[in-house]
Amino acid sequence: MNEQAKDKKDKKAGKLSVIGVGPGASDLITVRAARILSELDVIYTPTGKKGAKSVAHSIIEEYLSPKTEIFTYHFLMKADMAAKRAVWDEVAQALKEEVANGRKIGFITLGDPMLFSTWVFLLQRLVSEQKNPASWLEIVPGITSFSAIAAASMMPLAMEDQTLAVISCTASEAVLEQALLNHDCLVLMKVYSRFPLIRDLLQRHNLLEHALMMADATLPTEQCWRDLTTLSLSEKECRQELSYFSTIFVNKNWQLSR
Amino acid sequence: MNEQAKDKKDKKAGKLSVIGVGPGASDLITVRAARILSELDVIYTPTGKKGAKSVAHSIIEEYLSPKTEIFTYHFLMKADMAAKRAVWDEVAQALKEEVANGRKIGFITLGDPMLFSTWVFLLQRLVSEQKNPASWLEIVPGITSFSAIAAASMMPLAMEDQTLAVISCTASEAVLEQALLNHDCLVLMKVYSRFPLIRDLLQRHNLLEHALMMADATLPTEQCWRDLTTLSLSEKECRQELSYFSTIFVNKNWQLSR
Repeated sequence: MNEQAKDKKDKKAGKLSVIGVGPGASDLITVRAARILSELDVIYTPTGKKGAKSVAHSIIEEYLSPKTEIFTYHFLMKADMAAKRAVWDEVAQALKEEVANGRKIGFITLGDPMLFSTWVFLLQRLVSEQKNPASWLEIVPGITSFSAIAAASMMPLAMEDQTLAVISCTASEAVLEQALLNHDCLVLMKVYSRFPLIRDLLQRHNLLEHALMMADATLPTEQCWRDLTTLSLSEKECRQELSYFSTIFVNKNWQLSR
Repeated sequence: MNEQAKDKKDKKAGKLSVIGVGPGASDLITVRAARILSELDVIYTPTGKKGAKSVAHSIIEEYLSPKTEIFTYHFLMKADMAAKRAVWDEVAQALKEEVANGRKIGFITLGDPMLFSTWVFLLQRLVSEQKNPASWLEIVPGITSFSAIAAASMMPLAMEDQTLAVISCTASEAVLEQALLNHDCLVLMKVYSRFPLIRDLLQRHNLLEHALMMADATLPTEQCWRDLTTLSLSEKECRQELSYFSTIFVNKNWQLSR
């Protein structure tokens, strides 16, 4: 073996694995995710406001090796853009350095990493400089919350020529109404304090009979409201009673049993 | 133990587990799916035209116990509606009888069982008579093909206030065009012979720079076209060269690296 080949062999190649951990139940991560999690040098995991363990971390804890180092960060969900950007820059830089140091790094996200996940802000920072990140970056898809909601509620997402729209309820009323008119099936994520508005829209378009709401699907705290015709919550009550992960799911062609 | 309680104990409760096996790679099934597959009395699995093993069956073969009986059926994808309905009725009836006989039955679907899956036609038949199927029916969500495509291509599906539409290319041109205008991100499934039409629509709306096409994501036959500006295929060439599982994925806010 010549010196160059030996150098190459001795230098361990670093790798960042971005892992979707699914909707909540620990056994809804993929077999691939479970294997990668057991082999990590370090895992990057978000913390809540008071440094509490995140939902994502609780989901995958049982798969980690005791040797894996745990690095926590806090994404400041409610801060201004400049503060948020500073955290994203910092975490992206840390991940880059871990890869350069030849470590196996895990980065976990709830649901799927490519759908409504903060991870994408890091992806923008990490791939902008490199044409082919496939040698050091791997993204492992996860079960989306709406697949879990459809399975738990037994109402299908879309079939045949039907169309499905997936929208965050932080979108404008006009966007939400347009989508309700144009699509057979809709997943309205992050309902939370927008429930009264969404319920009004559904009522106006005679869709309350075809809609259900679910929160924390597949977690022990899972709740499902199969009858939105009688459910009435004020914005204040929503903030107190509804999980951030509450989702309304509409299928115009499905008769809900109650 | 009285006679009634003994009877109840001796009579094994039947259960039907409907399992999404994900996009193609065997290790992209969930940990839950792997466990259930190893404990089945019988698995229902589709066959292709000439009785060939289905993609779904190949994905999960390694997880099955040698004791599990394999029952194959053929869904006649191209037959008329009456013939299709007859097969769905027959398979639904067979599943019902298996449950009544106290067996653990697995029914597998590619991707997620609740999204564009033939399983939903069986669900309609199975739950119409029963108010609470949760005691004997369990649906295990699967990784959707578009989560796998986003992960493999490293282009995100949607973030923040963006909206995502998931549409089968068997939909009308008007529906497809409307969706292209209204949404930030689009998953256009089952492209196949509709490629020339979709490509024209993308060109007309200056979206070719933000679109890619992928077939058989995560399978050894995976193909990705990151540059649709130069790709030109006639309808006939599509039928010969494109997989049925070809998907075009558009993200208006993402700059594709090529």
